[in-house]
Amino acid sequence: MRTSAEYFERLAKMRPNIYLEGEKIGRDHPTILKGGKTLAKTFDLVNDPKYERVLTATSHYNGEKINRFNHLHQNAEDLLLKQEMNRVLSSLVGGCIQRCMGIDALNALSVTTKNADMKYGTNYHERFNKFMQYFQAEDLVGCAAQTDSKGDRRLRPSQQPDPDAYLHVVERREDGVVVRGAKLHNTAAQYADEIIAFPTRAIGKDEPDYAIAFAIPADTEGIYLLTRVAAPPERIPELHVPYSDFIDTESFTVFDNVFVPNERIFINGETEFGSETALLFALFHRHGYCGCKPGLGDMLTGLAALVADYNGVEKVGHVKDKLADIMSVGELVYAAGIAASVKSMQSPAGTYIPNIMYANVGRRHAGVNIYHEMNIIADLAGGIPITLPQTKEYANPEISEFLLKYNTRRAGVSPLDHYKAMMFASDVMASEMTGLITLAGVHGGGSPQMEDIAILASGNIEEKKNIAKHLAGIEY
Amino acid sequence: MRTSAEYFERLAKMRPNIYLEGEKIGRDHPTILKGGKTLAKTFDLVNDPKYERVLTATSHYNGEKINRFNHLHQNAEDLLLKQEMNRVLSSLVGGCIQRCMGIDALNALSVTTKNADMKYGTNYHERFNKFMQYFQAEDLVGCAAQTDSKGDRRLRPSQQPDPDAYLHVVERREDGVVVRGAKLHNTAAQYADEIIAFPTRAIGKDEPDYAIAFAIPADTEGIYLLTRVAAPPERIPELHVPYSDFIDTESFTVFDNVFVPNERIFINGETEFGSETALLFALFHRHGYCGCKPGLGDMLTGLAALVADYNGVEKVGHVKDKLADIMSVGELVYAAGIAASVKSMQSPAGTYIPNIMYANVGRRHAGVNIYHEMNIIADLAGGIPITLPQTKEYANPEISEFLLKYNTRRAGVSPLDHYKAMMFASDVMASEMTGLITLAGVHGGGSPQMEDIAILASGNIEEKKNIAKHLAGIEY
Amino acid sequence: MRTSAEYFERLAKMRPNIYLEGEKIGRDHPTILKGGKTLAKTFDLVNDPKYERVLTATSHYNGEKINRFNHLHQNAEDLLLKQEMNRVLSSLVGGCIQRCMGIDALNALSVTTKNADMKYGTNYHERFNKFMQYFQAEDLVGCAAQTDSKGDRRLRPSQQPDPDAYLHVVERREDGVVVRGAKLHNTAAQYADEIIAFPTRAIGKDEPDYAIAFAIPADTEGIYLLTRVAAPPERIPELHVPYSDFIDTESFTVFDNVFVPNERIFINGETEFGSETALLFALFHRHGYCGCKPGLGDMLTGLAALVADYNGVEKVGHVKDKLADIMSVGELVYAAGIAASVKSMQSPAGTYIPNIMYANVGRRHAGVNIYHEMNIIADLAGGIPITLPQTKEYANPEISEFLLKYNTRRAGVSPLDHYKAMMFASDVMASEMTGLITLAGVHGGGSPQMEDIAILASGNIEEKKNIAKHLAGIEY
Amino acid sequence: MRTSAEYFERLAKMRPNIYLEGEKIGRDHPTILKGGKTLAKTFDLVNDPKYERVLTATSHYNGEKINRFNHLHQNAEDLLLKQEMNRVLSSLVGGCIQRCMGIDALNALSVTTKNADMKYGTNYHERFNKFMQYFQAEDLVGCAAQTDSKGDRRLRPSQQPDPDAYLHVVERREDGVVVRGAKLHNTAAQYADEIIAFPTRAIGKDEPDYAIAFAIPADTEGIYLLTRVAAPPERIPELHVPYSDFIDTESFTVFDNVFVPNERIFINGETEFGSETALLFALFHRHGYCGCKPGLGDMLTGLAALVADYNGVEKVGHVKDKLADIMSVGELVYAAGIAASVKSMQSPAGTYIPNIMYANVGRRHAGVNIYHEMNIIADLAGGIPITLPQTKEYANPEISEFLLKYNTRRAGVSPLDHYKAMMFASDVMASEMTGLITLAGVHGGGSPQMEDIAILASGNIEEKKNIAKHLAGIEY
Repeated sequence: MRTSAEYFERLAKMRPNIYLEGEKIGRDHPTILKGGKTLAKTFDLVNDPKYERVLTATSHYNGEKINRFNHLHQNAEDLLLKQEMNRVLSSLVGGCIQRCMGIDALNALSVTTKNADMKYGTNYHERFNKFMQYFQAEDLVGCAAQTDSKGDRRLRPSQQPDPDAYLHVVERREDGVVVRGAKLHNTAAQYADEIIAFPTRAIGKDEPDYAIAFAIPADTEGIYLLTRVAAPPERIPELHVPYSDFIDTESFTVFDNVFVPNERIFINGETEFGSETALLFALFHRHGYCGCKPGLGDMLTGLAALVADYNGVEKVGHVKDKLADIMSVGELVYAAGIAASVKSMQSPAGTYIPNIMYANVGRRHAGVNIYHEMNIIADLAGGIPITLPQTKEYANPEISEFLLKYNTRRAGVSPLDHYKAMMFASDVMASEMTGLITLAGVHGGGSPQMEDIAILASGNIEEKKNIAKHLAGIEY
Repeated sequence: MRTSAEYFERLAKMRPNIYLEGEKIGRDHPTILKGGKTLAKTFDLVNDPKYERVLTATSHYNGEKINRFNHLHQNAEDLLLKQEMNRVLSSLVGGCIQRCMGIDALNALSVTTKNADMKYGTNYHERFNKFMQYFQAEDLVGCAAQTDSKGDRRLRPSQQPDPDAYLHVVERREDGVVVRGAKLHNTAAQYADEIIAFPTRAIGKDEPDYAIAFAIPADTEGIYLLTRVAAPPERIPELHVPYSDFIDTESFTVFDNVFVPNERIFINGETEFGSETALLFALFHRHGYCGCKPGLGDMLTGLAALVADYNGVEKVGHVKDKLADIMSVGELVYAAGIAASVKSMQSPAGTYIPNIMYANVGRRHAGVNIYHEMNIIADLAGGIPITLPQTKEYANPEISEFLLKYNTRRAGVSPLDHYKAMMFASDVMASEMTGLITLAGVHGGGSPQMEDIAILASGNIEEKKNIAKHLAGIEY
Repeated sequence: MRTSAEYFERLAKMRPNIYLEGEKIGRDHPTILKGGKTLAKTFDLVNDPKYERVLTATSHYNGEKINRFNHLHQNAEDLLLKQEMNRVLSSLVGGCIQRCMGIDALNALSVTTKNADMKYGTNYHERFNKFMQYFQAEDLVGCAAQTDSKGDRRLRPSQQPDPDAYLHVVERREDGVVVRGAKLHNTAAQYADEIIAFPTRAIGKDEPDYAIAFAIPADTEGIYLLTRVAAPPERIPELHVPYSDFIDTESFTVFDNVFVPNERIFINGETEFGSETALLFALFHRHGYCGCKPGLGDMLTGLAALVADYNGVEKVGHVKDKLADIMSVGELVYAAGIAASVKSMQSPAGTYIPNIMYANVGRRHAGVNIYHEMNIIADLAGGIPITLPQTKEYANPEISEFLLKYNTRRAGVSPLDHYKAMMFASDVMASEMTGLITLAGVHGGGSPQMEDIAILASGNIEEKKNIAKHLAGIEY
Repeated sequence: MRTSAEYFERLAKMRPNIYLEGEKIGRDHPTILKGGKTLAKTFDLVNDPKYERVLTATSHYNGEKINRFNHLHQNAEDLLLKQEMNRVLSSLVGGCIQRCMGIDALNALSVTTKNADMKYGTNYHERFNKFMQYFQAEDLVGCAAQTDSKGDRRLRPSQQPDPDAYLHVVERREDGVVVRGAKLHNTAAQYADEIIAFPTRAIGKDEPDYAIAFAIPADTEGIYLLTRVAAPPERIPELHVPYSDFIDTESFTVFDNVFVPNERIFINGETEFGSETALLFALFHRHGYCGCKPGLGDMLTGLAALVADYNGVEKVGHVKDKLADIMSVGELVYAAGIAASVKSMQSPAGTYIPNIMYANVGRRHAGVNIYHEMNIIADLAGGIPITLPQTKEYANPEISEFLLKYNTRRAGVSPLDHYKAMMFASDVMASEMTGLITLAGVHGGGSPQMEDIAILASGNIEEKKNIAKHLAGIEY
């Protein structure tokens, strides 16, 4: 397994193709290095006894110890550990740990390459296994590029006025294909070694060019990583709030006639398996959310309890109700993830697939509650997160004491701790991170609307109607 | 294992101590016989290959095949099967299967008798085991008597103006104790062989007389079963809606100076274990709810889908949203039960105890959503469940055709099926059953308010505050 | 103005065409007489100084003092008083006062007959005025027959397999028309003098036979009133709970080739005015709901507070939150009604029409919250409303004292009052009334789904998009 | 009435006492000038025929035409116009118009100074009227300083370890008083002429030093305005999103031994009128919120509709449901404000006071729904608001076309308009403004928890219990 130093070293050598604030920058740019600090935790903690159990696994290819973020799930226990890893690391960095997308995509492809081979006699699975072993051996970081720009939501990929609204093959060559399009919402693409691309939706039989899945280095010619950063505000050293160490970068990734060599292509025109890859990635990722969202929930619950405590109201009736409420959200999501793990099933490729229903009701519950969770913290914190002056005031001796004096609430907590707690509340509730927490909370891994579709499809509604017919005395 | 005929035979021999509509009646009264039909399913289906797997277990005392409703959970799998049994049988009868309360109480006592013995050198556990083996051998039905009348909610048991507000020991004899008080909300007491009584709340060190747990035949001298029945309306045979076969009886059980012999006493004055019994019963029962409430949810989802289908709107957007929503409630609760089973732990007595957090967030989610589920069905069914004339109209040939003609909605479904579907909707949404479904849905097994307490207690809020402090830069 | 005795006298003379429990009965049947007691309040209180101000009005036809339930709104103040009357009387009988439907329909027709005349030169308005003056002079009770049986919800009236799914003209004669169909959910039809019938939805230009509105005596040949009753359980005299005096009767009204003479026809084929009548009735009725639902809400709030008080927890934090919450529902609805009254506009006929937006958001808020309100009471009352034995037990001296003793909670309230409060809670939360309260709460006056349509239609969404475009820098 | 140029001119002459990012700055600093642009609208539009009707009033002192933001409400119509003014201007600037706080405080003081005089024979009202006439004549801007830092929420002002946790009199002189403390959440203090300070809560009889209300120039010696700014990101000129013209500044205002001369003191030790001022300001301000929150709601509804439209899904079922839902929030709040205006009452001073119940249920409804409204927009907008690269990318010709091409959705809308719409969505959903919109939405004008208290206090719960008792047959 790599060290984080080795990880950053490799990044630094890549071709600059990141665009930030209008400039083209390399992967040694301070913002990218800062962004990478979150992900670096997944390297740094691998030998920490506290995290080793969840953060490492044994490769089923060769029995070697690998980072669990590079592991294909071989049994239900692997799924439970994946969930636990996501929760633990997410609460540690106060949000997305950013390394799960790649492995969720690779788990999906491990299944669909096998399934495609079984039906069509292709040899995708062998190709995939070769790539996967390389990926594990090099201890790489993958990013998942799924969501297309999509154009008009009423039209299918092949019906769009701009055919590039969905990523597709524009040229087929002996040694590979050329693709064009854009993938949105690609977290951590700027510090990933590889981009794993695949369809975002069901592909029609008549649009095989859209059924394309592949892995490719993130600095390949023709790839442009247009970058959006969300970060808490910087503060003076005395007031450093560690939460601000963990920023988020998103990539609006353009594939402008990118060549993909054959050995990196895992699905190519088999539309039903393009579709299946889309669904299975979503499934693995929703299962993963049943781990990371409770981790985020632990942080939100902790923040809610902390501000209540500092305000002196932690034991008041309605406050306890709210704390139980916010805590229940995460625990119920986590429970659903456990059920999805335990009730998983093995695919022909050997990879274990989480239970569809439980992964979906779990992720859905997180998605429909994130604004409600924020509302609870807002209730408890009051207006101060948006009106408290930021750090630089504190540096001015004319006024710094005022800030401490008038931000202090209960006895037994130092003025500086009061101030830091409210700074942290400000970062969560009223900074650029706020939009990230909520919007990623609703849509990351698939929106509640998408989960509804999966729930209805897997819920056997006819059987439930039969229960009703039975009780109503209607034959069925 | 008994047949239902044997079960009813034994009931018929019991001393009449049931009061219904003001009359004292025996257990051969038609209403009691009808009420017993639900519970009789648990005898009748025991050999049905479709139900045998979930409905039977192997006694850990002697390896014999027993009814799972009389089994102590020996491992996580037992807890999973209990949940599954509850779901399957509940959807079959469209509600509470009524036999779990006894075994939930006995599982709790299996744990607390052992724990008490370990601390105090008492021999409750041996007594309990003797009783439990008799209970299994005779294939008995137990009812749980927990909720006291409670008097003023602000006062502890020993502070009440009326000391009988909580069941307590009023006399101690060589051969047993005499108890007085009342237990409310005792489902199925009228057709239970035994009543298992125990505290409803934490008992103070200074009120040992309230720390009493025992099992006693339901017709013991001094016991009065004041009965409330909830039932769907009866209809003419052509319009029989089988849901109306399953009625509910509740007992307001008075213990008017009842003698309990020593061999039937399982906790007697050890206040912390009286308290523990209260909590553990609630825990086993909340775990059980994670099975039966999804069963009820299957029925409610089925009804929602059925009326939508008959109205011709099943595929309309907002209807699909609502169906996914109602379905999610039950599945999320069930998932929590799975997690509670899988993450169970073994007690010193050997009995497996469900995970507190998951059992509580599961039951809580059911409790806070039942009115919402009813609301969804109301949205889909319209006003007809409360305005549709009941069955006798149909028997009058002057008007019966009108009822069929004007209640028919879409082609492809017979007028009679339309009528029956709406009758069933009427029974669920607008009969005496409606209050049962909703109030038992909120409070059965413990109200959301009680689960909040358990969630906060088991949720390690200090650890979560530390996550927040860590991210805020506050030492902890 | 009539006395209630005169009202019942007239009813008694009508042709028996009510079908109850399968029997054809007259309007002197005890159930009908009991049902009429609610409505009789509107006669009896007309001279009571406490109610006179809201319950009477001055006829704009002749300046005579009339019952406000027979008044056409001549200004905004009339609308405010209508709302207030509904609230006061609804809280008095604990539910629907049952007399507003007729006048809501007549107000609508006062507008649309004039509008139709203005466009088509018909003389509907004169006919209407003649009828209206008769209606006021005789102090009649009207019932509104709007909702058709509707058949397949996806199909328009003229597309239904059964053309009678919507009430329509089947024969046109010199002196009138013959109609066939059924109208559902007709509250109080059994003790109304007149039925006012009109379309339930927008009528297409090509289906003029469905655009028919008229008034006709409720016992006209060919009319069948198939009856459903909802009533709280009867109790022994010592335990009389006055709420049970007020029952609800609904009619599934069949028009089996009913002849309507010309002078009673108010719209006949003018499809846009058939549609407008449907919409305007809904509007007047939704405005009316902004009065009666707060009246119901007052009762529900009072019940919630009463059980909390008797349980000794009225001042507990979460209880106060819930009381404020349940109270807010009704007050917000009432506020919307005030706004709808104040922002009303005069129609060409002189009648004042409530503001569409406010009447709709008000009624919608009631509709989406009724199950939530019941949930709040359920939280506060506990399970006792569904498990408390009903009255006849109390009559048995063996057990009556037990019921009082063990149902008593706090000091300072007599056992009997405790018992009655819980009986009342049982009636509201767990009797046939429960389904009535909730289903009528959701659908009476039009479901939230229907209000959404009205809100979107009247909300000028394009103007709001322009606000967004303006702030986004997009030309519009 | 002043022009905005005159307004800024006067500001520029004030003593620098604003602290921004740690620096002491004058009121000619670019950030303050930018912040003042919102408020400047209230000067600039005063002669615009589109706004004149709502934005001007006639002084009751001298009959002169004045800015309505400087008017005392003389009748219900004034309250209706105030509400309308707030809505219109708020939707124009996409948020808080920032000038109402001062006048809400002055309306409150107009009432309480009179009431105090009537009880104590003081002459506060005359002082107040003198100040008020000056305020109108100079066309000043006032800011309201209410919320104290409050320290430990469990303790009263006089019990706090730090007596300055609430603003109070520390010295009494012949010619005035000296005060110390801090007031938080003071919107627009940086560009207000005057600060109106008064208590934040009920003051005990024994803590008269905390019952102090006064008006004082914002640059008075001893006043420190510690500033927090929330602003949407700046963009290049081609991509200017006008929403970013309107930023928010909040002041954490320290009163460090500030002298207040007698003629500026309006309450001084009369604790019950200190308390009444707190309550009445809240009431006027909650009424005002019933205008501005619907204005914000119009913007949010417009944004929701705009993104749905551009995505091509505006007519889809669940989208229409969501649009009706978000629109209902604002309209219901506005309706409550209308009711509060119409049901206002005149105080002895002549000033009209809004109805307590309706103002509170209206503001409460806004407060409990703001996160829900944001959730709806999140559902419709998808993840793009947080992942779309910001403006500077667009300036780089290498990539600008990619941004347009892949952000375009439906035909008929230019790529640039698509881009701007999503930029605007980003500003609302995922910038510093997001925290402002939500936290001010919950807490501005008083939190739902505070409104609950007012609702319970004014709701006559005993009368409602009597309704329940009447129906239950319990004497009262």
